[in-house]
Amino acid sequence: MYRTHNCGELRISDLNKKVTLSGWVHKSRDKGFMVWIDLRDRYGVSQLIFDEKRSSKDLIKNAKDLGREYVIQVTGKVIERSSKNTNIPTGEIEILVSDLKILNSSKVPPFTIENKTDGGEELRMKYRYLDIRRNSIKDKLIFRNKVSSEIRKYLNGLNFIDVETPCLIKSTPEGARDFIVPSRMNSGKFYALPQSPQTFKQLLMVGGLDRYFQIVKCFRDEDLRADRQPEFTQIDCEMSFVNQDDVLNTFEGLTKHLLKTIKNVKVDKFPRITYDNAIAKYGSDKPDIRFSMEFGELNSISQHKDFNIFNSAELVIGISVPKGNDFTRKEIDKYIAWVKRPQIGANGIVYVRCNEDGTYKSSVDKFYDQKDLANWAKTTNANKGDLILIMSGDKDNVRRQLGELRVEIGETLGLRNPNEFAPLWVTDFPLLKWDEESNSYHAMHHPFTSPKLDQIDLLKSNPGEVKANAYDLVLNGNEIGGGSIRIHDKNIQSLMFKNLGFSEKQAKEQFGFLMNAFEYGAPPHGGIALGLDRLVAILDGNESIKDYIAFPKNNSGKDIMIDAPSSISKDQLDELSLSLKK
Amino acid sequence: MYRTHNCGELRISDLNKKVTLSGWVHKSRDKGFMVWIDLRDRYGVSQLIFDEKRSSKDLIKNAKDLGREYVIQVTGKVIERSSKNTNIPTGEIEILVSDLKILNSSKVPPFTIENKTDGGEELRMKYRYLDIRRNSIKDKLIFRNKVSSEIRKYLNGLNFIDVETPCLIKSTPEGARDFIVPSRMNSGKFYALPQSPQTFKQLLMVGGLDRYFQIVKCFRDEDLRADRQPEFTQIDCEMSFVNQDDVLNTFEGLTKHLLKTIKNVKVDKFPRITYDNAIAKYGSDKPDIRFSMEFGELNSISQHKDFNIFNSAELVIGISVPKGNDFTRKEIDKYIAWVKRPQIGANGIVYVRCNEDGTYKSSVDKFYDQKDLANWAKTTNANKGDLILIMSGDKDNVRRQLGELRVEIGETLGLRNPNEFAPLWVTDFPLLKWDEESNSYHAMHHPFTSPKLDQIDLLKSNPGEVKANAYDLVLNGNEIGGGSIRIHDKNIQSLMFKNLGFSEKQAKEQFGFLMNAFEYGAPPHGGIALGLDRLVAILDGNESIKDYIAFPKNNSGKDIMIDAPSSISKDQLDELSLSLKK
Repeated sequence: MYRTHNCGELRISDLNKKVTLSGWVHKSRDKGFMVWIDLRDRYGVSQLIFDEKRSSKDLIKNAKDLGREYVIQVTGKVIERSSKNTNIPTGEIEILVSDLKILNSSKVPPFTIENKTDGGEELRMKYRYLDIRRNSIKDKLIFRNKVSSEIRKYLNGLNFIDVETPCLIKSTPEGARDFIVPSRMNSGKFYALPQSPQTFKQLLMVGGLDRYFQIVKCFRDEDLRADRQPEFTQIDCEMSFVNQDDVLNTFEGLTKHLLKTIKNVKVDKFPRITYDNAIAKYGSDKPDIRFSMEFGELNSISQHKDFNIFNSAELVIGISVPKGNDFTRKEIDKYIAWVKRPQIGANGIVYVRCNEDGTYKSSVDKFYDQKDLANWAKTTNANKGDLILIMSGDKDNVRRQLGELRVEIGETLGLRNPNEFAPLWVTDFPLLKWDEESNSYHAMHHPFTSPKLDQIDLLKSNPGEVKANAYDLVLNGNEIGGGSIRIHDKNIQSLMFKNLGFSEKQAKEQFGFLMNAFEYGAPPHGGIALGLDRLVAILDGNESIKDYIAFPKNNSGKDIMIDAPSSISKDQLDELSLSLKK
Repeated sequence: MYRTHNCGELRISDLNKKVTLSGWVHKSRDKGFMVWIDLRDRYGVSQLIFDEKRSSKDLIKNAKDLGREYVIQVTGKVIERSSKNTNIPTGEIEILVSDLKILNSSKVPPFTIENKTDGGEELRMKYRYLDIRRNSIKDKLIFRNKVSSEIRKYLNGLNFIDVETPCLIKSTPEGARDFIVPSRMNSGKFYALPQSPQTFKQLLMVGGLDRYFQIVKCFRDEDLRADRQPEFTQIDCEMSFVNQDDVLNTFEGLTKHLLKTIKNVKVDKFPRITYDNAIAKYGSDKPDIRFSMEFGELNSISQHKDFNIFNSAELVIGISVPKGNDFTRKEIDKYIAWVKRPQIGANGIVYVRCNEDGTYKSSVDKFYDQKDLANWAKTTNANKGDLILIMSGDKDNVRRQLGELRVEIGETLGLRNPNEFAPLWVTDFPLLKWDEESNSYHAMHHPFTSPKLDQIDLLKSNPGEVKANAYDLVLNGNEIGGGSIRIHDKNIQSLMFKNLGFSEKQAKEQFGFLMNAFEYGAPPHGGIALGLDRLVAILDGNESIKDYIAFPKNNSGKDIMIDAPSSISKDQLDELSLSLKK
C-alpha cells in the first residue's frame, strides 16, 4: 500500500495518527538541523519535517539529498506545526517522518512546476505531462470534468440518452473540409471523420429515440486560427416532437443548472433577441450583454445638415460610453486610430462629449447645433458625463465596426467581468447566405435547418430573405452553441438542396440515406450543439481553450510532445494502395 | 406544443384528462363502426379509439386512412377501456380522440417494426433508423446508456477524472494495424487513430492526475471476425500509487456496483486465479465458472497400463459431466465427432460411465480395471450418475480442446444461464509470448506492462518464463477487461523494449516521449481497460455486440446505410498530396 491518505486531507483532527503519504517533492527548505519538505499530489500539499533531535542521521541525510519532483513515500506521525499556514487546508499540521522511500528520481524539470511558471508555450507543450502537474492546468482539467459530469447528470435526468454515433463515416464536400481515413479492406475508398454527428442524430430521431445527447469528438481540417483545434468536443443534442421554444427552454435549463452548480450564479430567464435585432443593436450575432452601449440609429437626425460624410452614408449609428467624457483627447484619438486599422477598416469616429452642465461638445460642431446633439444623446441613451461615438458607412460594415469598438471599449472599461455571466438567445437567423465566390447560396447553419414554415413561398421567390428556425446560445460575447429545428419533410428538404445548388443526383449521392429516412415517418425534431471546450473555458472565466484540453495541438495541427503527424512506412502506404505525390 | 404526455405514461388515475399525444401508428384495428390505433413512441404504446357514436365522420375517415408508421398528433380524453390489457402499463385506459393531425406520412416499411421482425440482417442495417424503432434494439441502446452512466457515476464518486485524450495521434507499428489520417497542413505526414489511449493515460499519471477514466472510441484496422468492429468503445482507467490489489479491488467494486444497480444481482468477492491455474483447470484464460467441470490431471493414474495413447501423451486430463451417465451412446458419439472437427482438432474422447450402483463402464475397459476408473472418478470429482470424458495429447493442445468441449457441454446442459453472473480475476499472465513467425518475443499485454519485480533477473536469462503484473477481468467466459501495473522505471522500460527486439533508436523514435517522461518523476501506476460494447451485451444476457451499437459496421467494415467508405474527389486527394495506386 502506497498511502493511507492523500497529501490534501490531513487536518489538526488527525493529530498523532501514523500515516503514509506518497507524492512529489515540491519544495524543500534545509536549515541544517532541520529539513522541511512540501510533498505534493493532486489533492494538495503536506509538509514533512525531519530534525536532528527526532530523526535519525541517515534519514536526515536522505531527506537532504532529495531533488525537486522526486517521487517519494513517507511514513510518520501527524504533529501540530509550530508556525501555522492558514493559506492551505493542511497548514496546521506536519508529518514527522520516520520512514522515507524514494519511488522514483527526477531530472531537474525544464520549467518550474508553479502556477506562474518560467516555461514558454512551446516548452510547456513539449513537456505537457509536467505542465499538467501545475495547479493552474490540473485544476482546469478537473473543472472540465466537473462541467461535463454535470451536463450528463442534467440531461440524463431529462431522459436524454447518450448514444455513440460512428467516427468512421462518409466524406461530404458540403461545409468545412473533412479529415479522411483510407480503408485498407476497401481499396481506393475512404472514410471521413465526422465534423458533427448531425445526420446520425437526425436518424436517431427518425428511429424514435426521442431525446439524444452525446459529448463527442468532432473533426475539421481547416487552417487553424489561434484557439481552434482540428479535433474539438461537442455537446450534441437532439429532441423529437419539439418546437423552437421547447429546445430553448431545455437548454436554457441546462445552462442555468451549470451556472448554479458550478459557479453558484443564479441567472433569470435569458433574453431572446432576433438575429436582425442583434445586428442592429450590437453589430454582432453574439453580443456581449454584460454591458449596455446599444447602438442608436441616427440617420433621421443626422442627415439633415451639410455634413456630407453622414449624408452619403447608408447608416449612421452611435453608442454612448458611460462616463466617457472623462476620456482625454489622446484616448479618443487612440480609439480613432484603432478603428482605422485594416482589421476594422473604418474611416474614423465622430464624437460628442456630454458635459456635466448639460451642454455638448462634438467633433462636428461646425455642422450640428446643441439641439441636434441633444437628439443624438437621447437616441443613444447618453447622459451627462458620457461620450457618444458615432460611425457611418454602409450598413453591414459600419455595424460590424462599431460592434468591435463597443467590445474593445467594454474591455478597457472593465465591463467584461469574467465572473459575471450574461447568456442570451439569438434567434431567427437567415436560412441562407450568399457566397460571392461560388455565386450561390450556402446554408447559414446547415442544409437540414428548417425555414420558417410561413416563408416557404418566399424560398422560391427571394431565398435570401427567408429566416430559419435557427438559434444560437451566446454567453459573454461568445457563441457557445447553435442549433435549429430541422426539416422533417422530404419535399422541403429537396427544395432546400435545390436552393443550395445541389442537383438531384448530388443530393441523393450524399444524403440519400437521410432523404430515404424522411420517407418513413420522420417526426418533427430539432436540437443544438454546444462547444464544450469553449463553454468550459468561459464558465471558468477564460476565453482561451487550450489549457482546458489535456493534449492540445499547436496552430500547425501538430502535437509536438509525441511528434504527430509523422511519416509512416512504405508498407503502410502500400497496404492502403496509396502513394505520396512529390 | 406537440404533446402533453408521452405514449407510456397515462394511467387509470388520469381518467377524463384532456391530453395531447404524438407518435407513430403502430397498429390499427378497423371494425367499421370503431377504429382502434396503437400509438407508439419511445416510452410506450397508448391505445386511441375512434367510434361512430362519439367521433365525427371526418375524423373516423381520417383515422381509417392512416398507414403504419405515420406520425400523428392527437388530442382527446382519457377514458377507461372496456376490455383491459394487463400486459402493458397503459392497458387500463384509452384516448377518445377529438382531434387528429398527420405530422408526417410513411411508406410501408421494408420490414415489420416488431420485436420479432421479418427483416434480415442486411435489410435491417440498411434501414437501421427503422430497426432502432423496434423495442428489441431501442431497449438495448437505452440499456447501454444506463450502464455507461452508472460507470461514470461510480468512477466520479471515487475521484476518477474524465480526461479526453487526443484522437489524432502518431502511428506506431507495434501491436495491431493503425487507421491513418493524412495531414493536409503537414504534407506527406500522417496522424493515426488511437488503438487505445495507453500512452496518454500513463502521461496523465506522470502529470499527477492520480485517477483517470474515459469512455472512449478506439480503432483497429484488423480483418474483422464476426462481432469485431473497426471502432469500438473502451472504458479506459488508470491510477497512481497503486499495486495490483488496489486496481483489482477498485474495479471489482465497479463491477459489483453495475451488477447490483443494473441487474439487482449481488456477487461476493470475485475469485482470483493465476493464468497458469486457469489454463490447467479450464483450458482457457477466460474460464466460464458458472459451472464446475474442472480438469482432473490423470497422468500418474493412467499411464501405468498398456494403453499406448495415454502412455505416449504429454498430458491426460478429464472432466466429469454431471448426470452425464444419462447420455446415450449416440450423444457421446456426437461429442466425439465434435472434438474431431478441424476447429478443435482432437483425436477422440475416452469416456467412463459412473453407474448408480458404484461400478464403472468405460471405453477402455480392456486396459483399466474398476480401481483405476475409481481413481479417475476421484480426481475428476465424478459422482454416481456422472460421465467422465478424457482427452490426451500435447499439453497446450489438449487443454484447449478439453476447454472447448467443457464449454460446449456446459452450453448444451443449460449451465450457461445468461442471467447468472460469475466474474473472476485471472492474474499473473506471462509477460511475453514467443512469436514463431517473426522469431521474437511479443508483449502478451503491451510493452508498458511491468514484469513481476522479483523476476527481473529472469528477464535477462529466460524471458519466456517471466510473469507480469497483468490481469484480466472475466465474466461468464468472456474477457471483459484487461490491465496491468505499468513500468515506471526508465531502465526496466528500456530492458523491456530490448526484449521485444526494439533497437534503442526505434524505441526512442516511437516512444521517446514516454521514455522522456519517465525521467521526470513518474509515479508507480497501473490501470485497466474494459470493453464497453461487450460488457453491456453480457450484462444484458447476450454475447453479440452489434445490437448494442447504434450504427455498427458489417464484417467488411462497411456502413451500408450511409455507404461508407466511399470514393473521394481528386481534389481531396490532391490537397493531401496523395494518389491512388492502380
